[in-house]
This record gives sequence, C-alpha cells and structure tokens, in this order.
Amino acid sequence: MTKLNDYVKNYDIRGDMTLNELTSQMMDAGFQATNIGRAIETIKAMKEEKEITVILSFTANMMATGLRSIFAKMVKEKFVDVVITTGGSIDHDIILSHDKYGLGDFNMNDVELHKKGLNRLGNTLIPTDRYVLLEEKIKPIFEDVYKKNKTTNPSDLINEIGKTLKDDNSVLKWASKNDIPIFCPGITDSSIGLQMFFYKQDHPDFVVDVTGDMKKLANIVLLSKKTGGIILGGGVSKHHAIGVNVVRGGLDYAIYVTTAEQWDGSLSGARTNEAVSWGKIQEKARPVTVHGDATIVFPLIMSRFF
Amino acid sequence: MTKLNDYVKNYDIRGDMTLNELTSQMMDAGFQATNIGRAIETIKAMKEEKEITVILSFTANMMATGLRSIFAKMVKEKFVDVVITTGGSIDHDIILSHDKYGLGDFNMNDVELHKKGLNRLGNTLIPTDRYVLLEEKIKPIFEDVYKKNKTTNPSDLINEIGKTLKDDNSVLKWASKNDIPIFCPGITDSSIGLQMFFYKQDHPDFVVDVTGDMKKLANIVLLSKKTGGIILGGGVSKHHAIGVNVVRGGLDYAIYVTTAEQWDGSLSGARTNEAVSWGKIQEKARPVTVHGDATIVFPLIMSRFF
Amino acid sequence: MTKLNDYVKNYDIRGDMTLNELTSQMMDAGFQATNIGRAIETIKAMKEEKEITVILSFTANMMATGLRSIFAKMVKEKFVDVVITTGGSIDHDIILSHDKYGLGDFNMNDVELHKKGLNRLGNTLIPTDRYVLLEEKIKPIFEDVYKKNKTTNPSDLINEIGKTLKDDNSVLKWASKNDIPIFCPGITDSSIGLQMFFYKQDHPDFVVDVTGDMKKLANIVLLSKKTGGIILGGGVSKHHAIGVNVVRGGLDYAIYVTTAEQWDGSLSGARTNEAVSWGKIQEKARPVTVHGDATIVFPLIMSRFF
Amino acid sequence: MTKLNDYVKNYDIRGDMTLNELTSQMMDAGFQATNIGRAIETIKAMKEEKEITVILSFTANMMATGLRSIFAKMVKEKFVDVVITTGGSIDHDIILSHDKYGLGDFNMNDVELHKKGLNRLGNTLIPTDRYVLLEEKIKPIFEDVYKKNKTTNPSDLINEIGKTLKDDNSVLKWASKNDIPIFCPGITDSSIGLQMFFYKQDHPDFVVDVTGDMKKLANIVLLSKKTGGIILGGGVSKHHAIGVNVVRGGLDYAIYVTTAEQWDGSLSGARTNEAVSWGKIQEKARPVTVHGDATIVFPLIMSRFF
Repeated sequence: MTKLNDYVKNYDIRGDMTLNELTSQMMDAGFQATNIGRAIETIKAMKEEKEITVILSFTANMMATGLRSIFAKMVKEKFVDVVITTGGSIDHDIILSHDKYGLGDFNMNDVELHKKGLNRLGNTLIPTDRYVLLEEKIKPIFEDVYKKNKTTNPSDLINEIGKTLKDDNSVLKWASKNDIPIFCPGITDSSIGLQMFFYKQDHPDFVVDVTGDMKKLANIVLLSKKTGGIILGGGVSKHHAIGVNVVRGGLDYAIYVTTAEQWDGSLSGARTNEAVSWGKIQEKARPVTVHGDATIVFPLIMSRFF
Repeated sequence: MTKLNDYVKNYDIRGDMTLNELTSQMMDAGFQATNIGRAIETIKAMKEEKEITVILSFTANMMATGLRSIFAKMVKEKFVDVVITTGGSIDHDIILSHDKYGLGDFNMNDVELHKKGLNRLGNTLIPTDRYVLLEEKIKPIFEDVYKKNKTTNPSDLINEIGKTLKDDNSVLKWASKNDIPIFCPGITDSSIGLQMFFYKQDHPDFVVDVTGDMKKLANIVLLSKKTGGIILGGGVSKHHAIGVNVVRGGLDYAIYVTTAEQWDGSLSGARTNEAVSWGKIQEKARPVTVHGDATIVFPLIMSRFF
Repeated sequence: MTKLNDYVKNYDIRGDMTLNELTSQMMDAGFQATNIGRAIETIKAMKEEKEITVILSFTANMMATGLRSIFAKMVKEKFVDVVITTGGSIDHDIILSHDKYGLGDFNMNDVELHKKGLNRLGNTLIPTDRYVLLEEKIKPIFEDVYKKNKTTNPSDLINEIGKTLKDDNSVLKWASKNDIPIFCPGITDSSIGLQMFFYKQDHPDFVVDVTGDMKKLANIVLLSKKTGGIILGGGVSKHHAIGVNVVRGGLDYAIYVTTAEQWDGSLSGARTNEAVSWGKIQEKARPVTVHGDATIVFPLIMSRFF
Repeated sequence: MTKLNDYVKNYDIRGDMTLNELTSQMMDAGFQATNIGRAIETIKAMKEEKEITVILSFTANMMATGLRSIFAKMVKEKFVDVVITTGGSIDHDIILSHDKYGLGDFNMNDVELHKKGLNRLGNTLIPTDRYVLLEEKIKPIFEDVYKKNKTTNPSDLINEIGKTLKDDNSVLKWASKNDIPIFCPGITDSSIGLQMFFYKQDHPDFVVDVTGDMKKLANIVLLSKKTGGIILGGGVSKHHAIGVNVVRGGLDYAIYVTTAEQWDGSLSGARTNEAVSWGKIQEKARPVTVHGDATIVFPLIMSRFF
C-alpha cells in the first residue's frame, strides 16, 4: 500500500473535551478543519519571531458579534501591533461600550423591523436609538480633538475615542492604552462619517487627513524586521493589510479567514497565492486560507493562544 | 434604550475550556455561531421525542474525513434510525475499514498527482491501490449476495457489506449490527458501481432494484410518529431525506449544514423554508441552516450529544 | 513596457448587437466572461472531432427553467450523444410537456405558498396539481412497461416515457426519437420514485435495475474514440459523467458550469483539475470551469452553436 | 389547473439574435436570468424619473476588465450622476489610459509570475512596469494640486487626474468633462495611496481631507428629489452608496450585482431587504439582487440602455 506523509485521522469528540484537544484533532480531519490546524501553526510561527509586527485586520460586521471581546483581548495582551478595519467597527465599539445589540434571525421581515426602528445586520439587531447614543458620545470628542488640532488623522481620532471608553471588551480602549494604532482608511463610510458631515457644517476647517495615516502605517511596516497578518474578511481592511506590505517585499506570515471566492477577480476573494504574485505575501510565508464564518472559525483558532 | 428579547454576548475563550462551554457561548455570539447553537437546540428537541425516526444524510466527501467516526458513533449508539448517502460513501467506508487516506492540500499539482497514482479529494489523497483493495473486498460479497438472491436492493447489499467489516469506525458495520438501513438511491455512481458493471458482464441476471428501497424507506417514514432530519451537504442524499417526507406532510424537525447557495435554484442550496412550501418540512418545525464546512461545524454540534 | 500574449479588451456593447458579437468580446473581457469564451472554444474543439461521444449532464432544477428548450434542441439536433441527470428532471419534463410552471420570487413567504399549494423551486412555482397530472400520466406508462418486462432499467423506462410526449421542447421526446439514452442513476429520488413506490405496492415484482444502466453507459464510454463532457451543476449527474470516464482514462474535453466551491471537498465544487488527478479528465483536455448560474451562462455559450 | 400570474418560458436562442431579444427572454427564464430582466426594469423605472440622482458604485477589480468602457460610457452619456469606488479603480483607470493589462488564467503559478514581474488580479495580469508608469503620471498631478491647494479632497484630486487623461475609455476623463464627482472614501488603500506616502515625505503639509467629500456627497443626496443606486460588488463602495442615503430615508431604486453571500453577516453579502431595515433603501423601491460575476451580468443589463 502506498505510504504517504500525513494521514486523515478520525475525530474522537466529547462535550467535556477541551478546545485544545479539538483543534489538535482538526489538523488531521481534512478539508477546512485541517486549515484551522494549519492557521494555528502559522500564527504560532509568527509569534515565535523575536521581532515582528503583527497586523490584525477585520471587517465591521465582526465587531457587532461576540468576536469583539476576542479582538479586545488580542489588543489588551499585545498579541497584535497594528489593527486595520472599516468605519463601522468604530461605530460598533463605541456603542457596545455603552449598550447592547439584539439577536434575531437572518430571515426577519425587514419592512416590519424598519417600522420598529430595528436595523438588521445579519442576524443581529441594532435599535436606532443606539445611533442617537453614538451621536451624543462622539460630538464632545470631535470638540476636544478640534480644539487641539483642526487637522487630524483617522488613527489619531480613533485613539482619542479609545481614551473615553471604559468597557473592558472595547478594542479602542485597549488600543489607546497600549499605543496600538487602529487604521481605518475609509473612516467616513460609517455613522461617524455622517457625524463628521454634521460637524463640518459648523466647522468647515475640521479636517481628517488620510495621507497622514498612510505615512504612519508605511513607516511602521518599513521599519519592521518581520511582518505577519491575521486577516479576517475582505474589502479595504484586507487589502490595506497586504497592500502596504508591498513596500517591504510582502508579509512574512499570513492567514486569511474568508467567505469570499476568487472567481470574480475580487480582492476579497483572492487567495494568499495571488498576493504572492504581487509581492504582498512572501513566497516562503506559510499562508493559510480558512473558508468559513469568522464567528465559528476564529474562536477555535485563537483558543490555542488564550 | 430599546429592550430586546435576546442579546449578542461576547466570547470568553480559553484553550482549556470545554466544547460544551464553547457551543453554549456560540448561541449568543451572532451569525453562524448562533446557528450552531440553534441547531443543537433543534437536535435536542428531536431527541426528546418519545417516538421519532431520525434520518442522517450526508455526501460521500465527508466520509473521507475525520467525520466518519462521528457518523459511525451516531449509528453505533442508535442516535439515528436511517442513513441516506451517495455511492462514494460506501466505497470510502469499505476502504477505510482496511487502510488510510492521505492528507495533502487543495492546491497540489493534479497532473503530478495523477502520475503518482494519487487521487485528490479536496485536500485528502486516495492512492489508486485503495481501489484495487476495494475490488478485492467487494467481489466475494457480490458472489455471496448473488448466490442468495439474484435481485437485491442497495440497502440490502450495503447491509451485507457491513457484516464483513470489523473497523470500529465503520458506519456500515454498526448499521448492520443495529439494523439501521443505509439508503443509497444513486449507488451505481461510485467505484462499487463500476464493480457492478464488471460483475454483471459475467452475471447478466445480477440485479440491483432501486424500487425496493423506495418502498422500504417510504414505509419507514409513513409508519413514523415523528421524523427528524440531520442533513449535511446537498445533492441526492439531501433531497431523498426531505423528499420522502412528503408522504407524511414533512419532517417534524430538520437541520441543514451546507456550503451551497439558494440563488441558483438548486436543491443543494435550497433553505429549509423552501422545503416548507413543498410540505417536505413542516411549518412548525424548528429548522436551522448552518452555513459552513461540516468538518468544522458538525463536530461542534455533535459534541453536545457525546 | 512588458509585452504579453493576450490583452484584456474593452467591451463595446449595444442592445442591437448579436450574441455572437457579445460572446466574441467576452473572450477578452476578463474574469468569468473570459471563461465563457474559453468554454465555447472547448466545445468547438469537441465538436470538430470526427468520432466523439458528447455527454450532457445537468441537475433537475435547470429543467424547471427556460433552459429546458436548449437541452431539447441539443438532443433534437444530436449535438450530444448521452444525457445524464437526476430524477427531478424526468418529473419536470413530463409535467412541462402538458402544463406550465409559475414565476415568482426567491423571497416569497413559504408558509403561505404551502397553504396555496404552490411548491417553490428557487423563483419558480410548481402548483401541486402538476404532480397530480404527473401521477395520471405515469401510471399507464408503468403498466405498459411492466407488461412488456417486469424488470427495466432507468434509461429504458425514460425512453418509454419519451415516446408518449409530444411537446417540441421535451428533452425526453427527442431523446426517444434519436435513440439518445438518458441516464438517471438516482431515479427513485423524485416524484416518479414515489409513484414507483405506489406501483410496487400492487406489483411487488416490478423492478428497476440500476446495474443494467451502469453496463450500458460504461460500454458506450469504452467504445468511444473520444469523449467530451458538458457538465452543468454538481451532484450525482456531474460525478456520473466524469466518473464513468475513468474506465477509458478520462474525458478528452470537458466544461463545467457551476456555482459550487471546492473548499468543502465536495464533488459538486471540485474543479476540472481535481478530476485530472483521478483520470476522470485527461491532462491534455482543455477543461474550463465557468462560475455562474446556468440560466445566464449556458444560453450565452450555446448561442454560438445554434 | 392552477392559474398563475407569470409563467416560466422556454428560451429560443440563436447566435445572430440581438442582446435585446436575449434579455427579453431572460425575464421569463427563471433563477438569475429573471433577475437580470428585473434589474433592467428597475433601471428603466429609475431613468424615467424626471429628477433623480443615479449613483454607480463598483469595486476596483472590475475596472481592470472590459467593463471599464461600459462605466466610461455611462459617465460620458450622463447615465449616472455620481460614482463611488475604491482606490484601485483610480490606479487602473490611469494606467489603462496609457497601456494595457494582460489576460492569463486564475490557476497560474504565482511564484513564477512574481519572478516575471507579473501581478495577477484574477485572470488578468498587470506587469510591474505599469506601476512605474503610474508613478510617473501621478507625481506631476500631485505637484499641480499641491500648488493650488495644500489641502484637497479625494473627489477633487480625482477630478484633476481626469483632466489629464485622453483615453476615450477612461472613466475619470469623462467624469471630469461632465462634472460627475467620483467618491473614493478609502483612496489611500491603493498605489496612489503609496504615492501619497512618498509625496508626503517631502511635503508634510499635503493633506487629503475625507470629511470634505462626506459633506459634498451628503449634500448631493440631501438635495436630490429621488435617488437610485446601481451597485456592483461589495465593500466600502457598496456601503457608501447605500449608507449615505440614510440621510434622506433611503434609495428610491436599487439594483445589486454580487457574488457575496449574506450568511456571514457581511455588508458585501447583505441583500437589498436588509438595507430596508436600515432605511438605506426604501420599502417601496423595486430592489433586485443579481447573483453573478459582473463581467457577464452587467454587459447584459446595460445593453438595453445603449
């Protein structure tokens, strides 16, 4: 019989076994379970580097779920050095530092929800009053920032917001405490962005300069001995994390967790190998793409490091 | 602030926590994590019924992974009463009762694999000699079956195969021991099917009658007080599990685990609600569709019952 | 500037241009448009062979759409030599030879549809009385077949059904007229399958033998100088088309049209290259996988041949 | 027999028929073909409004394909009033105004491509020298803009770039000519973004203010009698197009063309109905989501208007 290097092994599962045992078994179980095992190995290798800048990137929808506390813990424990996300994440972190989101269903009647003032995000529900709260919280911060400096960068603004938050599950709070920059190149595409519009009506010289952050992020990457990426979801936050690494010949380590497909030529669906052609990920990196919803996949991966 | 019935809750994850703790947290974490929690609730309700026929259906690829032992355990412990699957599952269970499959990668060079005699199934590798083994094992079984009865049904044939298997992780072995029928309406679409072709060359009156199984399965369903479906993947095995329930007004309980989408009108991608329009699932059922790879999703779900 | 072999070219689109012009432009437009162009090239090469057996395989849902007449035309004009599909296709072709399906929406309320006796298949609607009609039409055919031969094969039974149909858009009618076999390994998974169950109650010796078709199909493939596959959708019909070609070292030409993904290790999502590792498609074949819904993709491809 | 309002109709396809005939037939063909027909109807209704602001949004990958000329024509003919896209679109439009992209395959060896200086974007190939060209072209534009105004907005910068382009297939050229603003909230996530970083090294007071564009876009939307969205792909460009419409109670008309799924809670995969719960699309809108690759779907849709 043909001998092979590795073999598929059967699961042996019990409810009282630990996550460590499960994820060890996953490595040999095949298909995406194996990719969870391999993603863990890549993150281990990343973290064993003496000097490495680890970038965590994720999309805003994830911040509206139970994953928020996992991101917060990663920032609190300095597991990562840089965060890249979209504007909605800032909205959610502020609101969730003061109140909660509801849990519904993907198939609810959206016309009825709209009448009730419930905004549906997948199967989570955000009552409209949460955005009133956001407005209340963000205005005085704009005031403070504006008084200090009429021109700010997204990451500086986010840092100021983080200083005002007290929730232990806040990503922004811990980022501010630990001087971990949060980059948000598309920050105006959010409720905060709408608040900026209102604020700018009265303060036309209030300026949020995105080139400042580009410089800050590029310099961090250029000065890094090694870089690693933990990249959840697609879009601008994914591309920014890999794209900026072009300046140094690519990420040394990378994992993707995604639900997108590559056949439409989208950046969101592009596999790690496509990034190799661009020099966004290095050839010798140990990239892994795990296909699945981050709310299931990411707790499994991170459980090995907590 | 608007009050809601249920709230999204943050994860609190550690490697040494149990799967029971994780899946409890998933219920409130949002997106597909929540659906894992709900699928567990539906299976619980299913198993609390005094008299219920539980149907497990899955696609052949899953039998080539670590999930095989989970299916075997479900059959061994009589957690399910009926199994529906495709022909490849029978191939895999026979081979894996005698030998192992390799673990590779989704992106291997298939031309080179072909030269080496390695057949790739996702990221698992099946050396061609495993199919030689299959041929050796299946021939004498065909002989025995043919001597007893020239006309057989797929489920009877599978039952005979199961009697010859000794591996504790074999689904067929336990099904035979526990008189749990395995239905396989498309049985010829498999390596066993090719062996049937060879066998029939010399024994033209060897007959595998699929109407016999249709009658057997329909009668089981008709005589059931309640029925429940644990349905992994799509295709014929999925449709057969729900389709036959039309005769009694639909499944009382159902969960789907799937990676397919509904927008192409495929049965594989159809949601549980579409089945309600057909009377394949009852309106009052508590159907849940979990989107994700079964190698990750199903161990999490079943861990609560083991 | 780096020279390349082929360049992306811009579209130049008008409503009064022909499909031939459009599909020519698609070849150079990038992403899946290019794959439509390439699929056309592969089918052209397939059809230029002097002696080739062309297999068309598709899933039952497609038979419920406007594609049915395209399949019928391919069979009528002997564009293909063999058809492989699932049981639902037989149901739909019979019903649609006598009546019509409705057009609705993917998001209709399925509980209400069920009350109205409307079965939803994607965004098509099949009133329950269509299945009453099916019952009426199929019973006398079973009688006739049974009187001639108590044991039949799916392809022979389907051939008999085809002889009774008069609709010019019927696939079965033209298949019968042109002696093109329609294979349906999982035939009992359908409404006809349920009718077989009822019929067998009264005629226990009514037998549908699937090994007979396995032999017939394998012999066709073995005796073919060349083979080509036009494979739409996944599941049993897809696998049967490529799987049987193992006996001759694989398909010489193959195109897939699919919406499934490979990362779950499913046969439905497996790319043409995976089939190369198995010897189901030859290394030198010009396989193309087009990702998209067949209702859009396939008319574009076939327009070049009509 | 149950009467229905609409019926599925068979295709009647020939290579020499017009696209108008094809798309008319698609309306009744079922599944996503029907959604192409409905998207055309929605755009027709949109364009029949006397006073409406039509927003076109798309992702950068599409600009690298044959679709670029379709977008250009829409802007040239003032079919749309506002464009929203990501930074990569600006890169591609500049480069493609001077040179071409190659056509390859999704499955090329990315390590070898990287050695040859070919950056793969799906199945298109962008030689690295195209980015050298981009650098040459963009520097003098930054100089000009900086001399006029040290602080600029993305849309003003893009307008200045458009003035320098002479290619008739350039989206930016026609946008500049017709005073159609192109919004790009995440503009620094691009090669231009990297060039901004280099430029800022020497000109620290060069500022790109994103709040200015937020104000400009919000005012356009607020002052519109009606708004319509033609939204291709997901990410920031999709969300920005629907998100800003919250200020006026939602889009009056909207079509989505997408390959993303909703089950991961992502904005990219969210259906039009989810946007209704947010007031981003109005209840009475006639929203349509077409699932498929825009390189195939969008030429079909737009052919009816050209």
